[in-house]
Amino acid sequence: MKLHNYFRSSASFRVRIALELKGLIYEYIPVQIARGDHKKEPYAALSADHLVPLLEVNGERLSQSMAIIEYLDELHPTPALLPADALGRARVRALAQSIACEIHPLNNLRVLKYLVRDLKVEEEAKNNWYRHWCREGLEAFERQLVQLPASTYCYGNTPTLADCCLVPQIFNAARFNVNFDGLPLTMAAYDACMALPAFQKAQPSACPDSQA
Amino acid sequence: MKLHNYFRSSASFRVRIALELKGLIYEYIPVQIARGDHKKEPYAALSADHLVPLLEVNGERLSQSMAIIEYLDELHPTPALLPADALGRARVRALAQSIACEIHPLNNLRVLKYLVRDLKVEEEAKNNWYRHWCREGLEAFERQLVQLPASTYCYGNTPTLADCCLVPQIFNAARFNVNFDGLPLTMAAYDACMALPAFQKAQPSACPDSQA
Repeated sequence: MKLHNYFRSSASFRVRIALELKGLIYEYIPVQIARGDHKKEPYAALSADHLVPLLEVNGERLSQSMAIIEYLDELHPTPALLPADALGRARVRALAQSIACEIHPLNNLRVLKYLVRDLKVEEEAKNNWYRHWCREGLEAFERQLVQLPASTYCYGNTPTLADCCLVPQIFNAARFNVNFDGLPLTMAAYDACMALPAFQKAQPSACPDSQA
Repeated sequence: MKLHNYFRSSASFRVRIALELKGLIYEYIPVQIARGDHKKEPYAALSADHLVPLLEVNGERLSQSMAIIEYLDELHPTPALLPADALGRARVRALAQSIACEIHPLNNLRVLKYLVRDLKVEEEAKNNWYRHWCREGLEAFERQLVQLPASTYCYGNTPTLADCCLVPQIFNAARFNVNFDGLPLTMAAYDACMALPAFQKAQPSACPDSQA
């Protein structure tokens, strides 16, 4: 199994967490997103969407982090990253999508670059943009957790797909000095995750390309 | 079953398609997003994330369109909106997420409003922003379809979650005059979907609030 990814990419980090939680061995192949390598050969020929992460597994190339994690969960069901019941799965998927569809897409590198290069947005306004969507999204995430049963992680007492998405978002937000006040359940889930070796091993500073 | 939604919301449209494909009866409850009703009572008390769609079903309130559709598919498996094999599911989820995580979040109403109100972006630059992300995302979508087996819809010969996401995006893109040239497989899947009554019944112009 080969994971094409980038240490700072949130979507890559999600998949690394899932692989570590399941104890799956993989080859780490860095793609220098900041340098634009994802749009050039040889990576562009390998990846139809020119994005990271890309997982090579069983002769197939898989894209989109949440789809990859569900695939890994179906092929390697223990430990489970989705609850056993349909309602639980709907809750976990909704939490994951609250990060992956509402926060992260607005704040990734290509969007911030477009703001600066094409819309001539100043540094401070760019950072305000980042913090606006991130804070608004995390507040919505917290409101969802408030309505769910009390639990150690985002949903239940073992990490799920929702935690795989939350933790990278918090790492990313910390780099932009997002205010985490008033998000007690969200930050408690984050802290519970970061106490686990799988999340520590998957974090950006533990990646081979973080020192490049 | 009650669907809180808005005729022009792409995410709402996705769920309407799934409900129609499965022949499920639901009460249509309009939420006037353009007027900001999703952030005010009584809707704000009902919806933890203050977004549409929200499905009330079996005494639960579910959010996030893709999570809702997977839940409906698990409870009402016929016709299936996801393939029977893990690889097929990974492909369909990745296609759906290519729309729902890469295109739509950058182009929804709240983002366009932020560009204009907070970043003082001119009308033309706003429309260029829309078209840039939409076109880039649809080209990536087309490259994925090229690598998949030939099929009538996005994946295979029955509509899936991927089609539920594609069709609303094409409707939305058409409103902003996005260029659809060079996307033959994508547009063939769209045309195949729009020949089906389920997609026609779910479209914005068929919604009760489209005349308001």
